[in-house]
Amino acid sequence: MSNTESFLADAQALLGARGLTSDPDLMEPWLTDWRGRYTGRAIALASPKDTSEVAGLVKLCAKYQIPIVPQGGNSGMSGGATPDDSGEAIVLSLRRMDAIRDLDTDSGQVVCDAGVILQHLHEAAEREGLRFPLTLGGKGSATVGGLIATNAGGTQVLRHGTMRAQVLGLEAVMPDGGIFDGLVPLKKDNRGFDLKQLLIGSEGTLGIVTAASLRLLPAIGSRTVLWAGLPSLSAARQLLVHSQKTAGEALEGFEVLPQHSLEAVLDHLPDARDPLTERHAWYALIELVAGQNGEEALAQLSEDLLASALEEGLLDDATIAANETQADELWLIRDSIAPAERAIGPAMQHDISVPVDKMADFVEFAAPEMERRFPGTTSVAFGHLGDGNVHFHILAPKGAVRGAWEESEGKLISAAAHDLVTEWGGSISAEHGIGQMKRDELGRLGDPVSLKLMRSIKDALDPQGLLNPGKLVPLAPDAITP
Amino acid sequence: MSNTESFLADAQALLGARGLTSDPDLMEPWLTDWRGRYTGRAIALASPKDTSEVAGLVKLCAKYQIPIVPQGGNSGMSGGATPDDSGEAIVLSLRRMDAIRDLDTDSGQVVCDAGVILQHLHEAAEREGLRFPLTLGGKGSATVGGLIATNAGGTQVLRHGTMRAQVLGLEAVMPDGGIFDGLVPLKKDNRGFDLKQLLIGSEGTLGIVTAASLRLLPAIGSRTVLWAGLPSLSAARQLLVHSQKTAGEALEGFEVLPQHSLEAVLDHLPDARDPLTERHAWYALIELVAGQNGEEALAQLSEDLLASALEEGLLDDATIAANETQADELWLIRDSIAPAERAIGPAMQHDISVPVDKMADFVEFAAPEMERRFPGTTSVAFGHLGDGNVHFHILAPKGAVRGAWEESEGKLISAAAHDLVTEWGGSISAEHGIGQMKRDELGRLGDPVSLKLMRSIKDALDPQGLLNPGKLVPLAPDAITP
Repeated sequence: MSNTESFLADAQALLGARGLTSDPDLMEPWLTDWRGRYTGRAIALASPKDTSEVAGLVKLCAKYQIPIVPQGGNSGMSGGATPDDSGEAIVLSLRRMDAIRDLDTDSGQVVCDAGVILQHLHEAAEREGLRFPLTLGGKGSATVGGLIATNAGGTQVLRHGTMRAQVLGLEAVMPDGGIFDGLVPLKKDNRGFDLKQLLIGSEGTLGIVTAASLRLLPAIGSRTVLWAGLPSLSAARQLLVHSQKTAGEALEGFEVLPQHSLEAVLDHLPDARDPLTERHAWYALIELVAGQNGEEALAQLSEDLLASALEEGLLDDATIAANETQADELWLIRDSIAPAERAIGPAMQHDISVPVDKMADFVEFAAPEMERRFPGTTSVAFGHLGDGNVHFHILAPKGAVRGAWEESEGKLISAAAHDLVTEWGGSISAEHGIGQMKRDELGRLGDPVSLKLMRSIKDALDPQGLLNPGKLVPLAPDAITP
Repeated sequence: MSNTESFLADAQALLGARGLTSDPDLMEPWLTDWRGRYTGRAIALASPKDTSEVAGLVKLCAKYQIPIVPQGGNSGMSGGATPDDSGEAIVLSLRRMDAIRDLDTDSGQVVCDAGVILQHLHEAAEREGLRFPLTLGGKGSATVGGLIATNAGGTQVLRHGTMRAQVLGLEAVMPDGGIFDGLVPLKKDNRGFDLKQLLIGSEGTLGIVTAASLRLLPAIGSRTVLWAGLPSLSAARQLLVHSQKTAGEALEGFEVLPQHSLEAVLDHLPDARDPLTERHAWYALIELVAGQNGEEALAQLSEDLLASALEEGLLDDATIAANETQADELWLIRDSIAPAERAIGPAMQHDISVPVDKMADFVEFAAPEMERRFPGTTSVAFGHLGDGNVHFHILAPKGAVRGAWEESEGKLISAAAHDLVTEWGGSISAEHGIGQMKRDELGRLGDPVSLKLMRSIKDALDPQGLLNPGKLVPLAPDAITP
């Protein structure tokens, strides 16, 4: 038997019929990322049923030198869970491990397998009068393990932090098959390096997350959603500071979008309407929340916030959603920007961040700068101003051919956008991770000291380089700059 | 010239007269930890004036193979900043780097050098109507760098987390003299492994923290301090859950102490008085806080909290501090436990944690168990119930000789206490770190997978083993178990 055949035989014996397949039809959906940007090949799709099977499989992979591509919901944004086209790796799916092991309402903690889908976690928390304070578009497919491996963000980071802030404990299988047992949630634990933190956001290159302890919060009692028209993004920044001072802990979300994005959504969604009577250069969507019995105070707070902002000249016009339907309509505008912009034509999308207090200045500089450098393009920035994270899209000139444009001018545009954000001290990946999409850009623009540290840690923990090869960690400089 | 002489000449040229000394009198205060438990020797005390000098010095140390012991306020609890007695290392003090580089009130962020003293940081924040939400007994000497290196805790962790939660960005000099530049605070940044997190709590064994960006919060507008008498620690746990549900974000602290500790304080402080008319088995000290103009609502919340707790039978008796003086008096009781217990006689002190929901069960099991195993001793547990972190002290039998007892029965007692907490899934170091004091205990009781990972990372980042040798990272198993 060949090395691969011997591995497959051993893996089959370990995992059983349900746990391993090489059937091309069964494997096919998991060899391409959900946006269809990357397609790879694999010798098998492994679906272990528990942590012990994951550990056994990783040991087999170490023995037979088989690369492993861990995969959760396969809904990542950077191709981090898609194998390369060598066909030498296995895809290790965590989806079969989908049990919520324990949910303790008193301590507000849940222990769940890596394969639990975010939507299911939300539902389980809601049934107990609690909530899991992170959500994003892919909640119907994204898994807890994938959210941890990519340190996912979303629309509640302003108030509750990224996935990192939700993780109280972690269990993972390391490259030698050892099980890192950090699942017990200790609020204080100073026994050396915080290995859990190293695993969060490591995109499956250092270990395979198999389970996690996560924090839950009391369910929201009520919310109000505000919509403000503003003369500029700088004004939005001032309104953000004002909102933080006025609303404090009640401020749950602060999103911004330019007039261009609103109009794209109004064109795209026939039923959508402009929340205000006149057009404004920028808009802010503000969500305030309260606990049980806080509805009345929250309504007052919302009115006070807008009244004081208006008085201080921080906004031009504003409205408060009168009910949940209107609140949903306002959020629908925000959530429809990406598809609405896509419907216009090809665009290069950049998930970037700079320090929160520099975001407005950055966009006001970078948007016209990109349009000047690439004539005919349109720069659009929208998103999470409160996190310093804006989705910075450069729309192609009219008539550009989808597919061809992205591969030619589009690549130059992305490199220029990444250069700019790096010059401003920002990040080329705010919340979508590096994966295979931005690995070489990270190698090009990353701080050399940080890159060296990352390579050292990767080599130390995964000396055979079997865990998610080709993702996240750029090769040594001499290998990428010949 | 010898190797050491060559190094000293080069270091002197780099740092100048103010930056380096080998004068025994000047070095002496920094060669013993503040509790007087560890004393070492050093070839010199280096006090660089900025990050560039730190980097230059570390490069010299790498060249001449000189070990480095980084030191902040020298007020650590585990001997992590005291050199060994080989006399081969230098002490690298960060105290001269004490500038607050920038304080931005709008974003609530401060950038400061590693040598800034916690008390000065508090004062700088207060001047701007803000606060830095971490405090502890050693605030007059503890430095920002030391707080980060040890991931310090304190009495506000329940609400605001440990030092890790305050750090937005970090600058550090790595063992090869490279400067890790992670100072720019990005709220979202998914460019690979979070190296900042690895450095926090690494006790100077992986890198030397030279500066940090920290978060600031709005100043407290008002507080109330409650004192409750309880039949048991389990009742305190129920009261904690009740308080979290009732007070939510307003709950700033929840400390517990047993009757023994109260009586020790009353004996120790002539002016202290029992806050309640009768004695109770346990006491809880609860602090609630509010922002500006929240005083009235907070007073109502405090009364509601106690009334509903009384109604549900969660406490026996309680009082609310009528003013700030009374509030301070209640906190003084809590803060005087350690010296009061010390005045009674020798004791072995253990800074341990278990999951918050197991703390009461653990203490109710472990306290009598230790007294049974070590006849004549008295077990006392007090501290941060809300964090699952209790200071577990075992007082010597009457007549035990201070010094001798700690070295004989005391060592057996600590080993037994560490065994117990490990069996319960807890940590042998909740907030005081490992240093040299608990290094071998970590080697004995730590999870083998975690220990192997720690050693791999240490070897990868500091292959010469020059950074704070002998601290935190236990030697390889074959070196400690012959």
